[in-house]
Amino acid sequence: MIAVLKEGTTVQQRDNLCEWFKSMGLEVHLSEGQFQTILGIIGDTSRVDIGLLESLSIIESVKRISEPFKNANRKFHTNDSVLDINGVKIGGGNFQIIAGPCSVESRDQIITIANQVKASGAAILRGGAFKPRTSPYDFQGLHAAGIDLLLEVKRQTGMPIVTEIMNVNDLDLFEEIDIIQVGARNMQNFDLLKELGKTKKNILLKRGLANTLKELLMSAEYIMAGGNENIILCERGIRTYETYTRNTLDLSAVPMLHELTHLPVIVDPSHATGICRLVEPMALAAVAAGADGVMIEVHNDPEHALCDGAQSLTPEQFDRVAKKVARIREVIVS
Amino acid sequence: MIAVLKEGTTVQQRDNLCEWFKSMGLEVHLSEGQFQTILGIIGDTSRVDIGLLESLSIIESVKRISEPFKNANRKFHTNDSVLDINGVKIGGGNFQIIAGPCSVESRDQIITIANQVKASGAAILRGGAFKPRTSPYDFQGLHAAGIDLLLEVKRQTGMPIVTEIMNVNDLDLFEEIDIIQVGARNMQNFDLLKELGKTKKNILLKRGLANTLKELLMSAEYIMAGGNENIILCERGIRTYETYTRNTLDLSAVPMLHELTHLPVIVDPSHATGICRLVEPMALAAVAAGADGVMIEVHNDPEHALCDGAQSLTPEQFDRVAKKVARIREVIVS
Amino acid sequence: MIAVLKEGTTVQQRDNLCEWFKSMGLEVHLSEGQFQTILGIIGDTSRVDIGLLESLSIIESVKRISEPFKNANRKFHTNDSVLDINGVKIGGGNFQIIAGPCSVESRDQIITIANQVKASGAAILRGGAFKPRTSPYDFQGLHAAGIDLLLEVKRQTGMPIVTEIMNVNDLDLFEEIDIIQVGARNMQNFDLLKELGKTKKNILLKRGLANTLKELLMSAEYIMAGGNENIILCERGIRTYETYTRNTLDLSAVPMLHELTHLPVIVDPSHATGICRLVEPMALAAVAAGADGVMIEVHNDPEHALCDGAQSLTPEQFDRVAKKVARIREVIVS
Amino acid sequence: MIAVLKEGTTVQQRDNLCEWFKSMGLEVHLSEGQFQTILGIIGDTSRVDIGLLESLSIIESVKRISEPFKNANRKFHTNDSVLDINGVKIGGGNFQIIAGPCSVESRDQIITIANQVKASGAAILRGGAFKPRTSPYDFQGLHAAGIDLLLEVKRQTGMPIVTEIMNVNDLDLFEEIDIIQVGARNMQNFDLLKELGKTKKNILLKRGLANTLKELLMSAEYIMAGGNENIILCERGIRTYETYTRNTLDLSAVPMLHELTHLPVIVDPSHATGICRLVEPMALAAVAAGADGVMIEVHNDPEHALCDGAQSLTPEQFDRVAKKVARIREVIVS
Repeated sequence: MIAVLKEGTTVQQRDNLCEWFKSMGLEVHLSEGQFQTILGIIGDTSRVDIGLLESLSIIESVKRISEPFKNANRKFHTNDSVLDINGVKIGGGNFQIIAGPCSVESRDQIITIANQVKASGAAILRGGAFKPRTSPYDFQGLHAAGIDLLLEVKRQTGMPIVTEIMNVNDLDLFEEIDIIQVGARNMQNFDLLKELGKTKKNILLKRGLANTLKELLMSAEYIMAGGNENIILCERGIRTYETYTRNTLDLSAVPMLHELTHLPVIVDPSHATGICRLVEPMALAAVAAGADGVMIEVHNDPEHALCDGAQSLTPEQFDRVAKKVARIREVIVS
Repeated sequence: MIAVLKEGTTVQQRDNLCEWFKSMGLEVHLSEGQFQTILGIIGDTSRVDIGLLESLSIIESVKRISEPFKNANRKFHTNDSVLDINGVKIGGGNFQIIAGPCSVESRDQIITIANQVKASGAAILRGGAFKPRTSPYDFQGLHAAGIDLLLEVKRQTGMPIVTEIMNVNDLDLFEEIDIIQVGARNMQNFDLLKELGKTKKNILLKRGLANTLKELLMSAEYIMAGGNENIILCERGIRTYETYTRNTLDLSAVPMLHELTHLPVIVDPSHATGICRLVEPMALAAVAAGADGVMIEVHNDPEHALCDGAQSLTPEQFDRVAKKVARIREVIVS
Repeated sequence: MIAVLKEGTTVQQRDNLCEWFKSMGLEVHLSEGQFQTILGIIGDTSRVDIGLLESLSIIESVKRISEPFKNANRKFHTNDSVLDINGVKIGGGNFQIIAGPCSVESRDQIITIANQVKASGAAILRGGAFKPRTSPYDFQGLHAAGIDLLLEVKRQTGMPIVTEIMNVNDLDLFEEIDIIQVGARNMQNFDLLKELGKTKKNILLKRGLANTLKELLMSAEYIMAGGNENIILCERGIRTYETYTRNTLDLSAVPMLHELTHLPVIVDPSHATGICRLVEPMALAAVAAGADGVMIEVHNDPEHALCDGAQSLTPEQFDRVAKKVARIREVIVS
Repeated sequence: MIAVLKEGTTVQQRDNLCEWFKSMGLEVHLSEGQFQTILGIIGDTSRVDIGLLESLSIIESVKRISEPFKNANRKFHTNDSVLDINGVKIGGGNFQIIAGPCSVESRDQIITIANQVKASGAAILRGGAFKPRTSPYDFQGLHAAGIDLLLEVKRQTGMPIVTEIMNVNDLDLFEEIDIIQVGARNMQNFDLLKELGKTKKNILLKRGLANTLKELLMSAEYIMAGGNENIILCERGIRTYETYTRNTLDLSAVPMLHELTHLPVIVDPSHATGICRLVEPMALAAVAAGADGVMIEVHNDPEHALCDGAQSLTPEQFDRVAKKVARIREVIVS
């Protein structure tokens, strides 16, 4: 961490500040120029509150050199984390396709789709029971009944299940769910993250609509600080001024996150683009960029999808994508 | 609402779609060109799920003409809403200054500041007991003890209190709090909004970091759909690529929201800029833009602020700002 | 095009407006509801000035249904455009790698790199002679001497050359240059675009830092309206709030542009990310997304690159990327 | 400037780098920690090419502490610059209103408006002769004939004129123009900036659509490095994801620029919002934020404006705004 002192700072003030850093177990190196004094603060600075530091009257600016996340940091955990999702591995060279409908709508729907996507190579089933919708007047999901249908399909197909939580009070309902998804809008719902940190559940943490990679990793850090290291990160598009696509899929997040953290990183091309015709090219691009998995929406009857149908593939389209994904993956790992 | 049909749509398909709209009580007008058929759908379209419509294979594009929010809509509620906060009115020509520290830290701190800002003209006291922090290692607030201190100050000074809720399970603690703040990160925590909609509490709803005005109004709609119309909207800066300021304060949101909705609109220049030197000019600009109030952070000892000190004013600085605010307000209402 | 009339518009005003549209050869369809009148305007609306329309006092809102670009529009030119760059084809199934240094620095440098990238499979050589730099104090390129060196390498290697123009007055210098690049900062330098429209040169048009795909296509339209249809579009990253990467590479632009236009679309992963370690994954992702080419910076001595060295590959790294690019391309076209 | 060296950097490499800095007249201070070595480089670092530095293999990261602009920097030029525009002063406490139509359309139009806005208090007349339009099919301005009309009005009214240049080859036409405007799309047209730097003309430099304040100041630096210090900066809205307004007016740019530079700063609320109803509140907000002037579009017949009519005020509306502007200005300077 670098702190630049304002002109006019007294020696006494400077020394007090240096003492404060030293009391936190940090080393301080001084660079004094004619106009500026620069402090180089070395050690574990993740616990230094940068807001507090900036508020001091003798400080001109503060910049972090090392990252404020620690448990998620690749530097302190060199090897890739590998998650074992009820027998299905992800991360560290293990690639998986997650597929399923946006929302669970009926027993028929979810069982049919599950069998279809499994046959095409999906290892994990997705399906929403609690749906975050911008409008209170739109369909909000089947809630507990949706969870029950997902668990029934799990028993029938053996596929692990991923589904979204929106309220910490629903946690009991997720006991047999294999991966709990934290959606983009809840990425900084810190109370929810803390509660999930107390469990040992697998967490799929989606990047927020306008959150930086650093903030995504700090949200992972909230969960990990509680003792739960079973986290998959998910890039799902960020908000920009472009309007042809719903969001802008930031695929450079994949190699960048792999550099910054040991956690697995997957990509959701369906929500990112919001357009079913773009799901194939962006799924393939995600694999080529090195993602540890892709999550794709599939619907057996898009004409009547209750939610987000515009971005869902038919099972036939998904089958074609899954085959190409496998071939791109072969090139990448070779 | 306008729906453009794809070339090749059959008359039967078109008529089915028109019937579906009519079954929802809507009128449909057809414009048939050589290459395109356009449907004009007229009536209360706020309950039409645009995602569902876009997913139909015969639809090329759908555009809303009228807004998807209803209770918050100025069109259906022409007069300004005026909230009565324990005797302090806001909205409809009533302007208020909200002031106080970022976080409640101690009895001394909060009582001292409360008396100072009251003397300078602030009508409502702010202070955080639950603090959303990006890092799990930063100070998170005094929680219930902080609420207790706020209520003690309320009894002593008579000032209504605004403080942030982060978890729906803490709602009981807010029983005597006058205004419950929903922070930017929770603007789309829909389960929290629904619960607040069941109460009659005054809600200060802050615009999310990267949310549109339409989304802000849809979040207000979540609360209003539950029966609670006591909402104050707050512009607090949005995320852009500019890095000199923490966020970019979008002051055109003030007159734009006044056009779209009858709810009061206030501005938080402290969080928007993150720099105490910018608080005065941006507070004055907010008043000039027509805001119904401003919310300003004040700290009696910025050197030791535990949180966000870099953006807090001293009581002396605040006093100067409050006086100028009053003079600008005079010009605006004259 | 849809125009919504304000409440209170008289029949006379409405009819005048309809007559005006009809005088431009357009058809008008009326939808009258209780509260709103909607006009559906059908025909070639690309010449209707939407700004003028919005300024009329009887207009509530105007929305385009069809795109404002015409020559670049896929709808009126179904087949992919194929450009023949001095014998090297691009577009319509023809994929090319463009490679070379950021700046031309010396005869030795540019000849060495040209031979190396040619051996690895690059068909076209890039190299900057005029460099747009944010700071007036940074290296600005060798100018005419740089162009001369590029042409010398062209004679030696037979590789077509792409290099950037910054000033319309330099056009004569580009007579033997095969592809004239219009950089991101000049994407809306309309006078430059008009001049290029009068030539028959191949133009590489880069998307601006914060420009939409529609604006990119309108800039292509400027060139095409002058009679020059030899345009390659280039996605090179857009500006967002993310700071780990220099820009955010928007790969969904590739399939989206392919849908909207018949022009070839390439991707520049070097400028987009600004980090050499991300060039390989993003180049592969671009190919997987369906790009017609990639443009990659290569430097034989990154330690002493005068410009943008942080994003340049060594020839050895480039060779590895080029081989993987070819293998991904095989999967995509199969 | 701070440079962090990678682990594994040899003493020899480190010393070579330090020597290089010293050869540029800079001082270097070393901070060596267990894991990191930090160099503090002190002196005039504006001529250090940060791209080159980042490209060195021993560098982990580089951060500027001082700003890369020099002539525009408040630190080296403490007093406000005051421009004298043919007798009309701006900056350093001198506030001016610039007003006029978007485009010059006819002798009648421009003379009528000029007299009206002058009567209401505008000191400088604006009017476009060269219009940058996104579409090649939209009205592009009267060009030389428009300049002639502006000069005729200047002779009649005595008002200084500001109008936009789009092409360096048109510079001769601007000989008697008092302020040459560089539009948002040309803010980084570096060749144009260099040419303007060779003149002594007053330049109105508009912030680009998605440019940072630092980039705006670097563009001013291009002009100043050539010897021309007569620059007025203009905030005119930046591009964000919000769609209700055309752009997002960033008013915090005003006090922030005043801190960073001595140049005058004005605001254009008309282009920023694109909505005439928002011009008054945002003009007043700009004045309250401390702007040295506002630039407002006025049209005597908005029904027939050829360009951007949706954001123009009538002379009557402008008169009301000008009166309120004067009253807000009084509060600010008192």
